[in-house]
Amino acid sequence: MAAPVAAEGVILVGQKPVANYVLAAVTQFTLGSKKVILKARGRAISKAVDAAEVIKRFMGEKVAISNVSISSEKVGEPGKERLVSAIEITLERKE
Amino acid sequence: MAAPVAAEGVILVGQKPVANYVLAAVTQFTLGSKKVILKARGRAISKAVDAAEVIKRFMGEKVAISNVSISSEKVGEPGKERLVSAIEITLERKE
Repeated sequence: MAAPVAAEGVILVGQKPVANYVLAAVTQFTLGSKKVILKARGRAISKAVDAAEVIKRFMGEKVAISNVSISSEKVGEPGKERLVSAIEITLERKE
Repeated sequence: MAAPVAAEGVILVGQKPVANYVLAAVTQFTLGSKKVILKARGRAISKAVDAAEVIKRFMGEKVAISNVSISSEKVGEPGKERLVSAIEITLERKE
């Protein structure tokens, strides 16, 4: 697998090259998924946006970005928690 | 001014520390703006998300993120253009 798939249709964008996440998403759409969600935190947020834009161009008319949301998530051990920014980008196959 | 303001209510997030963009946005809301848009490209995208999350926490109930959109923009000289990812985060004062 090119990139970790956390839950059905969810791809966690991290340290790997953008192409890995693009391939993971395109594979999921090719295998019949209607929806793929890219999630990223911190500095990987820019990479998730890059991946979404590449997927959109690659899939042409077939896939659109249906939602983008941002949030803060608590990370770290208890007592040493800190907030990191996060993004969720939802890509959906058009019928 | 802490950060460049391109058009009314638009803050371009770039190389400066997150706090500069937070201050610029909070200043605009304090001066009466109903809406502030953070724009960023490339690696500054993560910083724009950080700034938006800090502004939201700082302004408490008074400001919400009303829209997040991503796109690709052409940059560079004619003949040497390349696509970079971009984000627009809209923060709005609640009535």
